[in-house]
This record gives sequence, structure tokens and C-alpha cells, in this order.
Amino acid sequence: MGSSIAILVTNEDARPGAYEEMKDLYRPSHADYTYEVKYGLRNWQGGGRASARETVGRVAAGAIARKILQNYFRTETLTWVSQIHQIVAVVDEKTVTQAQIEGNSVRCPDPVAARNMMERIEAARKDGDSVGGILTVLVRGCPPGLGEPVFDKLTADLAKAVMSLPATRGVEFGLGFESVSLTGSQHNDLFEMREGHVHTKTNRSGGIQGGISNGEDIRMRVAFKPTATIAHAQETVNRSGQSVTFRGRGRHDPCVLPRAVPMVEAMVNLVLIDHALRALPKRGLESLAAHLLRLPS
Amino acid sequence: MGSSIAILVTNEDARPGAYEEMKDLYRPSHADYTYEVKYGLRNWQGGGRASARETVGRVAAGAIARKILQNYFRTETLTWVSQIHQIVAVVDEKTVTQAQIEGNSVRCPDPVAARNMMERIEAARKDGDSVGGILTVLVRGCPPGLGEPVFDKLTADLAKAVMSLPATRGVEFGLGFESVSLTGSQHNDLFEMREGHVHTKTNRSGGIQGGISNGEDIRMRVAFKPTATIAHAQETVNRSGQSVTFRGRGRHDPCVLPRAVPMVEAMVNLVLIDHALRALPKRGLESLAAHLLRLPS
Amino acid sequence: MGSSIAILVTNEDARPGAYEEMKDLYRPSHADYTYEVKYGLRNWQGGGRASARETVGRVAAGAIARKILQNYFRTETLTWVSQIHQIVAVVDEKTVTQAQIEGNSVRCPDPVAARNMMERIEAARKDGDSVGGILTVLVRGCPPGLGEPVFDKLTADLAKAVMSLPATRGVEFGLGFESVSLTGSQHNDLFEMREGHVHTKTNRSGGIQGGISNGEDIRMRVAFKPTATIAHAQETVNRSGQSVTFRGRGRHDPCVLPRAVPMVEAMVNLVLIDHALRALPKRGLESLAAHLLRLPS
Amino acid sequence: MGSSIAILVTNEDARPGAYEEMKDLYRPSHADYTYEVKYGLRNWQGGGRASARETVGRVAAGAIARKILQNYFRTETLTWVSQIHQIVAVVDEKTVTQAQIEGNSVRCPDPVAARNMMERIEAARKDGDSVGGILTVLVRGCPPGLGEPVFDKLTADLAKAVMSLPATRGVEFGLGFESVSLTGSQHNDLFEMREGHVHTKTNRSGGIQGGISNGEDIRMRVAFKPTATIAHAQETVNRSGQSVTFRGRGRHDPCVLPRAVPMVEAMVNLVLIDHALRALPKRGLESLAAHLLRLPS
Repeated sequence: MGSSIAILVTNEDARPGAYEEMKDLYRPSHADYTYEVKYGLRNWQGGGRASARETVGRVAAGAIARKILQNYFRTETLTWVSQIHQIVAVVDEKTVTQAQIEGNSVRCPDPVAARNMMERIEAARKDGDSVGGILTVLVRGCPPGLGEPVFDKLTADLAKAVMSLPATRGVEFGLGFESVSLTGSQHNDLFEMREGHVHTKTNRSGGIQGGISNGEDIRMRVAFKPTATIAHAQETVNRSGQSVTFRGRGRHDPCVLPRAVPMVEAMVNLVLIDHALRALPKRGLESLAAHLLRLPS
Repeated sequence: MGSSIAILVTNEDARPGAYEEMKDLYRPSHADYTYEVKYGLRNWQGGGRASARETVGRVAAGAIARKILQNYFRTETLTWVSQIHQIVAVVDEKTVTQAQIEGNSVRCPDPVAARNMMERIEAARKDGDSVGGILTVLVRGCPPGLGEPVFDKLTADLAKAVMSLPATRGVEFGLGFESVSLTGSQHNDLFEMREGHVHTKTNRSGGIQGGISNGEDIRMRVAFKPTATIAHAQETVNRSGQSVTFRGRGRHDPCVLPRAVPMVEAMVNLVLIDHALRALPKRGLESLAAHLLRLPS
Repeated sequence: MGSSIAILVTNEDARPGAYEEMKDLYRPSHADYTYEVKYGLRNWQGGGRASARETVGRVAAGAIARKILQNYFRTETLTWVSQIHQIVAVVDEKTVTQAQIEGNSVRCPDPVAARNMMERIEAARKDGDSVGGILTVLVRGCPPGLGEPVFDKLTADLAKAVMSLPATRGVEFGLGFESVSLTGSQHNDLFEMREGHVHTKTNRSGGIQGGISNGEDIRMRVAFKPTATIAHAQETVNRSGQSVTFRGRGRHDPCVLPRAVPMVEAMVNLVLIDHALRALPKRGLESLAAHLLRLPS
Repeated sequence: MGSSIAILVTNEDARPGAYEEMKDLYRPSHADYTYEVKYGLRNWQGGGRASARETVGRVAAGAIARKILQNYFRTETLTWVSQIHQIVAVVDEKTVTQAQIEGNSVRCPDPVAARNMMERIEAARKDGDSVGGILTVLVRGCPPGLGEPVFDKLTADLAKAVMSLPATRGVEFGLGFESVSLTGSQHNDLFEMREGHVHTKTNRSGGIQGGISNGEDIRMRVAFKPTATIAHAQETVNRSGQSVTFRGRGRHDPCVLPRAVPMVEAMVNLVLIDHALRALPKRGLESLAAHLLRLPS
């Protein structure tokens, strides 16, 4: 219709009482203290906007972005768990499929690594501890020309989008931090013609050059810290400035990575569709005018 | 005055002719191809907005942000070269000073590493090759409470700001990608009281929790790829889709890291001052109303 | 909490069937044609976003703005019906109260005019016709200093706000269009001191000079056209480009003015509170820094 | 190039000394007082951003918007002086041309009224007084479908744009305030087919219905107050709160209307081109995708 789309999600299993003991203290490496110092009060009954529950709206909106990308732009965004703690998956980016990713509960398309990851997570749970990891994103069929010069580069907006998710600690594109140990002659992607179009022979740039997509696969990685909530006794302070000991309880996950996959995918798709709408076609004004004036186009 | 500030920078040494041979081909890992695919034409005489010359406006504006941060908020942003290719500096973040950073031409406060870096860069120049590296940012005295929930987290806006700079490939906060190999009990920052204020005993979070500054030093690292322009002969294609060979000439630097230091510092300071202006004080409405209505505050 | 506020309003009396006959034709002076030409389709079951039902969200949000303006800024926005068709109310702006406005169903604080207005509206209803009118807005106690130079002048933002309401045809400030028949010496507001503060002797400027509030009452007027829906048979065309005759039915009001009062008041209050939040106090950076750094202010 | 366009205008005849006597007092109905109360200081040497000199940037940018509107959209915006003080021009909107408007120094296409206006302005100058007036805007060939539902209606954005110009006091669309004295049956614009397209028989709506352009001529009027600077002695107060007498001198115009014509035209054209760029064509996603993916469109 051209109308805004509203999505209402009802939390049917809120348990505010489960957070009673956190009311007056600051859980280590959570947002309790920073929200309180900012606003003078905070929603302690589940973490408020600092809880990953907030991302439900992003994922719901991202599902619409995904449909538009698939149907109109033939663009597919794959996101998977590529590392949990020190277990690293081996994935062939040329052949990996969504079905392989969804083939196990840790959303890792390397079945051997997936099994080890599940064990590692289970071990963390038993220890009352937690682990972090890395997600890899691969966008196939991204149209070239997305991304704006200067401030709104595609790398910049993708970085902002994923770093606005809870527990993210870093993001990199193409070879990322690893590119530092190469020289320019080792790192540069040479151009060649393939099937009548300009392509790069390698893709160390991760599909984005000068902040604008070049039509190759977009490749990025996102680091998530280990979950802050653990069952160990931890020292902290309360709102009165007294030292207290805190031991996490309630519904918490020793590893957020598998559940972060749809969040990251949604944010990437939302950024891509935003940039597609900003990418005025080369023959843009003519076709826009032709449409608006109903002239033959 | 409350007025906008305009800064005009004249390029007094433009040499468009030096780029003549790049007019019709796409330099590998430059933005030539992506700009052309986006706009249908491009400014080949120096790279246009894809050139790092564009950042002069950011650095000039950042100098004003720095003054405000220093004078009003007692906040100091230090940025230095912490790695060039495979040479890693050892820096004591507690004691490092701006004078030490500016003490050598590579802007690395570790004098031994600085000397090795200079040699490495010189070697790259002789090879007609290039190297990349990593910058470290340390913000001392950042007020707590900066950063907005959900999309405009301080991590998100800082990530976008630095990833909008040319040649950046990744950004991380606190322990960043390294945090992945720790467990939650190893990574969490415990709270304690120091001099009457809430502080963390460690600072693995890099001064930002839940996307909001907590008053500890902000720590981040930014990866820059090796410069795309090298003197080696490289295969590429031209605008007509023919294979051609290209060898870089003109004014180029085998390593951008030392010159990227003021760019990154400027972007960080601009983000901090933007967020400070958004941080309505706890007693904000009262004091705003008192001011506007000239009541005793 | 600092959190966003969500308000959900359920339309418990939607009657889509009542609009069945409008599905394929364009009602004269409605938005049927323009929405269809823009989007290629339209929500004919009640007018979609072109219906004044849309303003419920503005009024609900405006109620919060009003509370903040009253409690923190001592600012009161009065809006009343000052003209219906050719009946003009006589109102003493110095003494008029909210109770007088709400004292009758047409929201006109002149009881004699109010009675005539009610009769005029009833006559229009009997004729199957409709009438328009004018609302007057008076903001008492608006803090001086609201409004930004150049594009976001207070006049500009207030004009946009009220002109975004359905059926508005014009807006004017102070003497408005009438100021045209005065000379500068007749129109200028001279300054004087009153109770230790700068005031103007007259208020022909309507409380805004150079786009910034001066602390006098803000005075504006908004014109609403006669309701487009009438019971007369009207010629129009249908979606197939054929001439057809249309006669309005369904739930429509021969005069929207009384119900437009809360809409206009809400939009004015929302603009005022937005500008108050943008009005960084003169001693703004000091007090902001003092708060953020917890220094004695 | 896709690049931003920068325009630098040098004021080669600034005379700050001419404003010396205004340094410490508030000129009646100028922005001296409101800027000072907002910022604590002001640029008294010519009025700063409150001076109409500021509009040079709008007019320069508007010239580019006009070219795009003319060349791509066949849209022409005419603006003329339709009233000065109490002298009202008679203009045939069907036939009026840009040449007729520019045919005299008051920019009024009615030559008889133009002569009377010039005399009226000259009389005001001799009296040391000033006069205001009304501009009429007529946009021919505006594409249908411009304007967004809810807040960014075309009426709303045009109103904001012209009300952000100095000395404006009111704006109206179509019949504007006059529509109030008509009934719905007198005011409604009936639809008919003409040359295979939907048109309205009359244009009392001024080319905009439901906030969206309908393809008919856009008609609006803007009221300007009489110039605040007059040569009469006027009472006012100075910065110390003392009563003083002020008599205007310096470069001032007894009537701004002729010089406001290009300002209003520029602002209208800027709004139209902004909305054209937002008007995603009906077949928008298909054509955008086809372009970006270089499929046959």
C-alpha cells in the first residue's frame, strides 16, 4: 500500500520476579551501571532495552528486507557461526547453503566443528561459565554500486548496524585484521573480464571497494564476547556503593552465537535494502520523470 | 556566535595530469571501478571523493571537537600506530603521552618499534610495494553516560565513524576479536569503589558497556589494509573491457598509517562530542527550563 | 526510564463495508486520486492514512508534550474555533481559558458565536453540505530562545506541523496576511522593560521574531477548508476513466473544526518541546560537562 | 559526478561600521533581541544569519533545482508580486509568463498595478516608512504523486520552506483562508477526463489533495510583513535595560517583495526536487533492480 508496516510482538513469558536480586546491584559487564549512570534509573526486570529481546523487532523487519532482496535483487545473505571459543569451523564459501547452516542447533555448516561447539557450550554451562565466538557473513549477488561516498560508505553502515547488536566487540571486512600482515602486492584484487562483466580474480576486499559494493560477494566477520551472565560468584558493588557478591541466575545462555545469526543477517539485509533505495539508477532522473509524467519510457 | 563554522581548504598542489594514464582503466583495489559503476563516470584526476584528501575536512572539524572535549569535559583522545605490517609496538597505556606519539614520524610511542616500522616502510618503498597496519585509540576521561540504547550505541557510532575512512578494514573495542578465546569468568570486568566512584577493576570492555560509556578509558583498534597503489605491474581491465597492465606512479605513500592517526582521532572526537550533546543531563529538563525561563536554577 | 513510549490504539468500530461504493471512483477533493496515482493502489476502506483517524497518534503524543510544557516550562497552549464559515468569534486573548473553550461542543469561547456556529453546522448538515473555518492558537509562557536560525525557524516548523494535518489550507503568525495592509511604523513592536525583563509593548509579531520566540504569547491562525464529503450528487470519474456520479454517505462530519482543536494543539506542543530540547542553554556546555563529570555545578 | 556541489559567494561590499549604533540596542521587530536571548551574544554587524543576505545560498541552489525541474520534469515555477500594501495586481494565471514578471522592477506582471506599486514604495521611502505585500506562486506541469502521507505532505514542506524565509508571516494554498467562506459544494473540485487523463474541472485545491500533488497547477500565496527597518524614531531598550530611541540608517529597502521573488521560487523548487527524488516510481523496485543488476529492463 505504501503504508508503514507495524509489527506487534507480545512477550508472553515475562518473569520480572526472576530479576529481583539484581535490582540494587550492578551485574559485571552488563549495562546495569551504564544505564543507571545515564538515566538515573533503569529497568532491572529483564534488562530493558539492553536485553537482546530488543532485537526481535530487527529480525522481524529484516525478514521483509530479505524478501525484497531475494525477489527483486536476487541477493542472498548467509550468516553462520564460524568460531565458538577456540573451535574454528572450516567452511567452503563457494558452496555453503542456508540448509547446511540450519542443519544443526549451533548454526555452523561444518558438522564436525558444530559437534565440538555444542560440547564446548555444554561444558561452559556445566562450569557455570560462558563462551563467545565469531559469525561470518556472506552476501551473494549483491548489486554493484551500493554505498555512498564519504560518511555513509557501505562498510561504515554495515559496521554500525552489527556493532549496535548486544555483545558485539568487533567487525572486519574481507581479510580484515589479517590484511595487515600482507603487502599491497599480496592483497590487491586484480580485475578481469568474466562472462562479459568486470570481476576481480580474488576477493580480499570482501566485495566492497572505496565503500561501494563491486558486485563480488560481501564478506564480513563479527566478534561476540562471552555472555556476561555466569553462575560463578562475582564481586561487584550495589547502588549504595557497597561491595557485594553476585551469582547469576534466571534464563541465560552460556553462548549467544547461534541466536545471534538471525540478528546479524537481519541487520545486514536492512542496510543493503536501505542503500539499494538510495542508489538512484544511472538513468534515474529520466526514468523517474518518465514515470511521474507518464511519458513513454 | 551559535553560527555554523565554515572552513575552506585550497589544494595548492593539484596535479591532475599525473593521473592521465588512469583515466581509462580501473586501478586494482582502488575505487575507480565502483565509482564508475555507481555514477557512470568518475573523477580520475586524483581519485575524487575516494581520495584520502577528502579527510582534511574531518580533521579540521575534529580539531574543534578536541578543544571542546579538552576544555569542557577534560577528555583526551590519544591515537597511535601500534602495528605496521608485522611489527608490533609495546605501549604502556597508563603512561603514554601525546608527546611520545608525536616524537617520531611514524607516530608510534614505542621508539624501538618506531625505528623498525620506518625501516619496514622504507623497504616497501624500495620494493615498489606497500604495507598496512593497526591504530590504537585510547580516550581518557570520557564522561560516563555517552551512547544511546538500541541503534546509536557508542560502539556503533564509533565503528561507523572510523570505517568511513579510506582503507579501513576492521574495528574492535576492548579485547575485541581476542575476547573470543576467553570465557565469561575470564572476560567480565568486576565493579569496585575507588575514590568514592564506581569503577571496574579491569577494562576488558574498553570503557563501553551496553553501548554506553562507563567512565573507564575507551579502547579501540582500527585495521588499515596495505595501500592499493604500488609500483609493481598489475593486470587489470580498462573501460572497454580489455585486459591491460598498470604500474602505479604519482604521489603515493607506501604506508598510510602515520597520516591516518589524525583522521581517526578526529572521527572519534566528533562522535564523542555529538553524543555529549545528546546526553541530556539527569536533571536536564529542570535546568533547561530554569535557563530558558531565567528562574533561579 | 529514558525508553521510547509506545501507544497502541485499537479501532473498535471500523466499518470497511461503508466505503464499498468508493472503491472504484475518486471522491472529489479527497485524496483517493492522488494516493492512487502515487502508489498504484489505495486503501479505499476508510481513507487509509489520508483519513483524519491518523491524527490519533499525534494527539496522544501531544498529551505527553503538554504535560512536560506545563510542568517544566509553565507553558500553556490554548486552541479554539475562531471562525466557522462566515461566523467570527470575539475572544479576549488576555483572559480566555481552557474551560471557556471546552464549555461548548464547538470549542469556541465566545458563547454567542458558538451558538450561531452550531446552528450553521446543523444547517450544513441538513443541506447535505459542509463548512470550514479558522482555528486560533495562543501559547502563553513560551520560553524565549526557541527556534533555530535559517531553515528550522519556529514559524517554519509550526507551519509545517499544522499544514501536515488533513484539510488545512493556510497558516499565519501574528497579524499574518493582515500585516500587509500596515506600514512598518504601524506594524513594528517596540521594546520596553516590564518587571525587570525585556518585553514588547504590542505583539503584532505573534511572539516570534527572526524565527525565534521572544517570550511574548505566540499567536497563530490555521484555515481549514469545508469538509470534502457532502451528500450532494457530484460528478467525478472512476478508475476506468468513465464519468460517474457520486453522493457521499457513511460517517462524516459537516465541519471538522471542533475536532481539529486537539490536533492543532498537539502539533504545536510537539514542535515546542522539540525546540526546547534543541535549545542548548547559554551555559550549556559547562552544565552538561558538570553533570556528566559529576563536578560541583 | 555524483559529488556534492559547493558554491562560494564573497560579500565584496560588507560595511560593518554602518551598524555600529545598533551594537547595544534591540531594533524593534528585528531578530536582535531573540538572537541575544538565545545565544548570549549576536552578530550586530549586518544582522548575521537573520539578514536576508543568508538567502543567497538558497537562491544559488534553487537555480540548479530549476534546471532539473525544467529539463527532466518539464515543470515551471512562476513567482510574482501580487500585492504591495493595499495595491492588488490582476493577473491571468493561464497566460502569465516569466518575461512579464521580469518586465518591471517590482516583478509584478500587471503593468498598471506595477506602476502603482512602484509609486507606493517610493512614497514609503520618502516617509521613512516601509510596506509589505504578498507573493503568488504558480507551478505549471508539476508531476502528480509528489508529497508523502502524514508528516511530509507537500503542503507541509512547502509551507515550512517559505516560512523559513525572513519577514514571512503567512502562507496559503489554493483558495487558502478564502476557502473558509465557501461551502463544500462550492469548494470541491470535480474530476473529469481531459485528453485521456484525469483532471479537475476547477483548481480550488491549488494542485495538492491529501498532501500529494494531483498534476494540476500548484497555487500558493505568501505574506511578507512591512520591512522592520524604518527611518522613524522608535522607542526601544538597550542591552543594559535602559529606554533609548533608535532611528534606522544603513542599506535598507522600504519593501522586500521584489527581491523575495527569487527566494520563494528557489525554496519551492528545492522542495519539489526533493520530493521528486523521494517519489519511488510505481515500478520502482523492478527498474532499480534491473539497473543495478544490469538485466534488460
